[in-house]
Amino acid sequence: MSTTPSRVEQPVLESRVLRNNRLSDPHIRAVTVYLPPGYDDSPPRRYPALYLLSSHGSTGPSLLNWRPWHVTIQGQLDALIAAGSMGPLIVVMPDMWTRFGGSQYINSEGMGRYEDYLIEEIIPFVDRTFRTLPDRDRRGVVGRSSGGFGAITQAMHHPDVFGAFACHSGDLYWEYTCLPPLSRMHQELEQYGGLDAFIRDIPTIRPKGSTFWDLVMTVCWSAAFGGNPEVPRGFDLPIDSNTGALSEAVWARWLVHDPIRKLDSALYAEALRQMKLAFIDVGQYDEYQLQVGARVLHRKLDVLGIPHVYEEYPDGHRDTHYRYAESFPLLYEALQ
Amino acid sequence: MSTTPSRVEQPVLESRVLRNNRLSDPHIRAVTVYLPPGYDDSPPRRYPALYLLSSHGSTGPSLLNWRPWHVTIQGQLDALIAAGSMGPLIVVMPDMWTRFGGSQYINSEGMGRYEDYLIEEIIPFVDRTFRTLPDRDRRGVVGRSSGGFGAITQAMHHPDVFGAFACHSGDLYWEYTCLPPLSRMHQELEQYGGLDAFIRDIPTIRPKGSTFWDLVMTVCWSAAFGGNPEVPRGFDLPIDSNTGALSEAVWARWLVHDPIRKLDSALYAEALRQMKLAFIDVGQYDEYQLQVGARVLHRKLDVLGIPHVYEEYPDGHRDTHYRYAESFPLLYEALQ
Amino acid sequence: MSTTPSRVEQPVLESRVLRNNRLSDPHIRAVTVYLPPGYDDSPPRRYPALYLLSSHGSTGPSLLNWRPWHVTIQGQLDALIAAGSMGPLIVVMPDMWTRFGGSQYINSEGMGRYEDYLIEEIIPFVDRTFRTLPDRDRRGVVGRSSGGFGAITQAMHHPDVFGAFACHSGDLYWEYTCLPPLSRMHQELEQYGGLDAFIRDIPTIRPKGSTFWDLVMTVCWSAAFGGNPEVPRGFDLPIDSNTGALSEAVWARWLVHDPIRKLDSALYAEALRQMKLAFIDVGQYDEYQLQVGARVLHRKLDVLGIPHVYEEYPDGHRDTHYRYAESFPLLYEALQ
Amino acid sequence: MSTTPSRVEQPVLESRVLRNNRLSDPHIRAVTVYLPPGYDDSPPRRYPALYLLSSHGSTGPSLLNWRPWHVTIQGQLDALIAAGSMGPLIVVMPDMWTRFGGSQYINSEGMGRYEDYLIEEIIPFVDRTFRTLPDRDRRGVVGRSSGGFGAITQAMHHPDVFGAFACHSGDLYWEYTCLPPLSRMHQELEQYGGLDAFIRDIPTIRPKGSTFWDLVMTVCWSAAFGGNPEVPRGFDLPIDSNTGALSEAVWARWLVHDPIRKLDSALYAEALRQMKLAFIDVGQYDEYQLQVGARVLHRKLDVLGIPHVYEEYPDGHRDTHYRYAESFPLLYEALQ
Repeated sequence: MSTTPSRVEQPVLESRVLRNNRLSDPHIRAVTVYLPPGYDDSPPRRYPALYLLSSHGSTGPSLLNWRPWHVTIQGQLDALIAAGSMGPLIVVMPDMWTRFGGSQYINSEGMGRYEDYLIEEIIPFVDRTFRTLPDRDRRGVVGRSSGGFGAITQAMHHPDVFGAFACHSGDLYWEYTCLPPLSRMHQELEQYGGLDAFIRDIPTIRPKGSTFWDLVMTVCWSAAFGGNPEVPRGFDLPIDSNTGALSEAVWARWLVHDPIRKLDSALYAEALRQMKLAFIDVGQYDEYQLQVGARVLHRKLDVLGIPHVYEEYPDGHRDTHYRYAESFPLLYEALQ
Repeated sequence: MSTTPSRVEQPVLESRVLRNNRLSDPHIRAVTVYLPPGYDDSPPRRYPALYLLSSHGSTGPSLLNWRPWHVTIQGQLDALIAAGSMGPLIVVMPDMWTRFGGSQYINSEGMGRYEDYLIEEIIPFVDRTFRTLPDRDRRGVVGRSSGGFGAITQAMHHPDVFGAFACHSGDLYWEYTCLPPLSRMHQELEQYGGLDAFIRDIPTIRPKGSTFWDLVMTVCWSAAFGGNPEVPRGFDLPIDSNTGALSEAVWARWLVHDPIRKLDSALYAEALRQMKLAFIDVGQYDEYQLQVGARVLHRKLDVLGIPHVYEEYPDGHRDTHYRYAESFPLLYEALQ
Repeated sequence: MSTTPSRVEQPVLESRVLRNNRLSDPHIRAVTVYLPPGYDDSPPRRYPALYLLSSHGSTGPSLLNWRPWHVTIQGQLDALIAAGSMGPLIVVMPDMWTRFGGSQYINSEGMGRYEDYLIEEIIPFVDRTFRTLPDRDRRGVVGRSSGGFGAITQAMHHPDVFGAFACHSGDLYWEYTCLPPLSRMHQELEQYGGLDAFIRDIPTIRPKGSTFWDLVMTVCWSAAFGGNPEVPRGFDLPIDSNTGALSEAVWARWLVHDPIRKLDSALYAEALRQMKLAFIDVGQYDEYQLQVGARVLHRKLDVLGIPHVYEEYPDGHRDTHYRYAESFPLLYEALQ
Repeated sequence: MSTTPSRVEQPVLESRVLRNNRLSDPHIRAVTVYLPPGYDDSPPRRYPALYLLSSHGSTGPSLLNWRPWHVTIQGQLDALIAAGSMGPLIVVMPDMWTRFGGSQYINSEGMGRYEDYLIEEIIPFVDRTFRTLPDRDRRGVVGRSSGGFGAITQAMHHPDVFGAFACHSGDLYWEYTCLPPLSRMHQELEQYGGLDAFIRDIPTIRPKGSTFWDLVMTVCWSAAFGGNPEVPRGFDLPIDSNTGALSEAVWARWLVHDPIRKLDSALYAEALRQMKLAFIDVGQYDEYQLQVGARVLHRKLDVLGIPHVYEEYPDGHRDTHYRYAESFPLLYEALQ
């Protein structure tokens, strides 16, 4: 008996929590869902679900993009299942895009209630639309880069929702991840005519070179970590607008979001202790020095006695989607 | 009365001419086709067709990719039609991908009979599968970069098939387009362990940085322009394998493919003269100096008295898809 | 009556305080001294003296180097005097070179007692060898980059020795000047085989590219700011040797040396208040973001009511020797 | 009996042939001469002489510059003699600087009669001023990069003047050395406001970054190889001023100066055959791909049966002064 092939569905969900978000980003969005081989066979069967969070500058649907010399995410999942590396599962690729290149997967005054969107709207929608096993023990979260930050953060916030996570080359340890680009933020803003002009021009700046990406990342972090309902744009800059120096008060609010520091809270440590799988990896030559944060996290988890899988690879930050072949099977197994 | 929305179809075509190609690239491929708003309405209507050739390192289906802060090609086409800038038309995005990142849209011993695949297989397949106006006066070809080279080359070769073309930032004038990367080819090959090792490792080299892209482009050109049925891999390198110096004999065979030089042939000049639209543009700060070739082409067309539209933009090579908003309406109009 | 031309002398001084320094750098060095036009005329006349501190990676004698399309420092001084922009003065270019590319002009366990060398040995030697006006009111200190840091630091430490200073594009505000390269230090050390191997290989590493310069600067700072007599090499690294993360305890010792923070001390503020000229400049596009520290310093001096000259130029960090034409005449005037 | 130490003299020579050169560069210049240890001892002794030609962007006197972590040229020569690697010799470092960063050591309408300056003025001046052995068998020429081009070119032109040469990482094989930067020339000229503006601004452009150096090199070559007494500035550009494309006629005049092609002349081949030492080296990862020209030259010399020493090093173009330790002793020996 042959099995029906995998397929991708993109049903549309109208969000209540994203309505009237400050950046006027859409509140009606597709939810991209991979349904595994056999999903359409009878008798009906339910599957564990993995929430795959994209990195800054991309979004759920973009994970389907054709990329040169790469299998697509659908092909990669099909191959892992066909090879018996893991059983069939549903993979959800939510669209958390904003004008600033992403939402960081948290609620923020500056961008919108994206964490609520994920937890309160997308997950229930998926669970009622597709044949998931709607249980935290059968639901995992995974991502790369900013998506890896999203995965560990959501696991810390919602151990009742997620039973396992994988953080690939995640944004960790703000001193090295955020501070170097912050040192350049003032000069880069000047280059683009100031914050208001930059925000206005983001969609049309051409070409979008390395300076653009550097700056849009720091603006995104600013909106995510420096929220302030009192100011028109909903967030404070982490730098003094005259000198460009660090604004210590705002920076302190950023640090609260660093997963390294969050682990000092018993609540969040306890959340990770409840995970059936905590998977962390990084490339030892990461161009953003994320290997430092990964190592610090690894040691802190050891000190706290929190079981986890930790891997380093002899490569960098880019072109590392291949590592899903390591984490997906472990997640699948943990979610049994 | 409302109009049905546009949609994209990807029917599969089994190629005869690509079967057993030397790189073992697939001969069964999808053909990506944009069908305009109203296509599904009755009564049936026929449309002009535009063949949109992707640049090196990409392929027809990849033109559908989500790209940050860009509308998709479908969105861009919908918007141009909705705004009345042009009427509805069918856009075909063929998959001419190879292990070397593209086929250059010509037949070659090194890669395969991609020109035949386009002209003899894809176009007839599209014409019998979709409601095109199956006539050279209603069929155009357009592309950027290597796809721009493909567009002008196909127009030169097949004025009976195409009635109009647009060449955006196309590869032209081999002395500047090809020779600088050729000067680095020998050292880059050494870095990757030689040609055989490089060809073997192309899919798995990580990360694919600028040196990789530089080299895979020159290897692709080598296979396209230096074909030699007598040697195992089907093509000669344009450089001496010991010193790295230019192989003058092979280089001479490359030059034959430079559209600038092809214009010296009355046959090809005559082909372009038959075009209802010849559109050429370039960015004046093109990072590959393609503005030089574009200017030389422009002057040569003037000297030959071949009517054409020529535009320069104050930008570079990347992020220039926006220029389709200029060429598509002109092509549409020409194909009426 | 014609004036004798300027000349440079390089008398040799044997240092007592540098003897047996930890890096085995020479303790017998030349002192490079510019003697102005007319110095050799009779009757004898005494002159104010300026101590010109070179930037990291260079040394006093290197200021005499021929540089393409530049007048030499001797030519620049001659021209300013000839044009009447300033009167004649003696300029001393001390050699404070170390294996780590410079000494930062302070005493350190890691490198040696370079501050004592300057204050206790070079200055008395110059005053007894040349016809200076041996008085703090007639003695200034000036430098670029690390030399600018040296100038303001020496002015803070020794208001009894120096009566004026100029700090061009000086290292200021450690969060932006030092922390970004520190984030890369661990990975760079790995690349060179660890700290001991790097220190051993510094003279012979070829070519000395940007990674080398990045790392040797952080090693130099480490030796200057993280001194520890208890460890064999005389200094602690500011990073954890396992993870690469910031060592907070060592970093706190670094911060003490940041001129921005030193100004919080009444002693150092008072020292600057006694200056007859405090001159600070910077390029607003400084590649190391030193414009931020300069602006913070400028505001802090304003708040403290310390008179100073502050200039920003629309350029960067490199090729800015031309700005001596601004500071030297002001220093000359202040030292009258 | 102790030996007197080496010393450097810089006597001034007023040139007749450089007077009224088109760029208004000075015709009164110092000649920098290294006199070996023992030169000042009695009884007088005569020495072989080596003419050391500096690379583009530098000049004879700049070879004396202090460079970080390097011994000076004087120190390097002293050490080779002290170690017994070679005997004492005189090293002459002529100043062939021009506004365009160098003269390429040949006569040109665009810059001046620098070859005559070297051969007819400097050498006789040195021979009558210092105790050289004034004989082609005792006189060699050596250089790096453009200075390496100068060395092999002068050896080809003047076998009666020089009896040996060494060409380190020399400019060879114009297709790879010159053509890639020529492809960028038009765009770079535009960036600086055109050729006249660029020439006017050369001394004051700040900072002198990689684009500046790229362009000033091509302008220097243009003046050296494209001389034309009929035009005001004395040389033709090798590119079409409208399109930027190669001017084939001017390029053909450039090619005549490529040492690779010159070897096709029996006259020049015969000149090299008369050398007591022909030494060629290069780094196999030369950033300008000069290893290709070196290999082509090596093979051509083999085919012609011209004895020579050929070395490749596993490094690049920069920081390669250390290789003089290889060539100087061989040159010394050949000049016995």
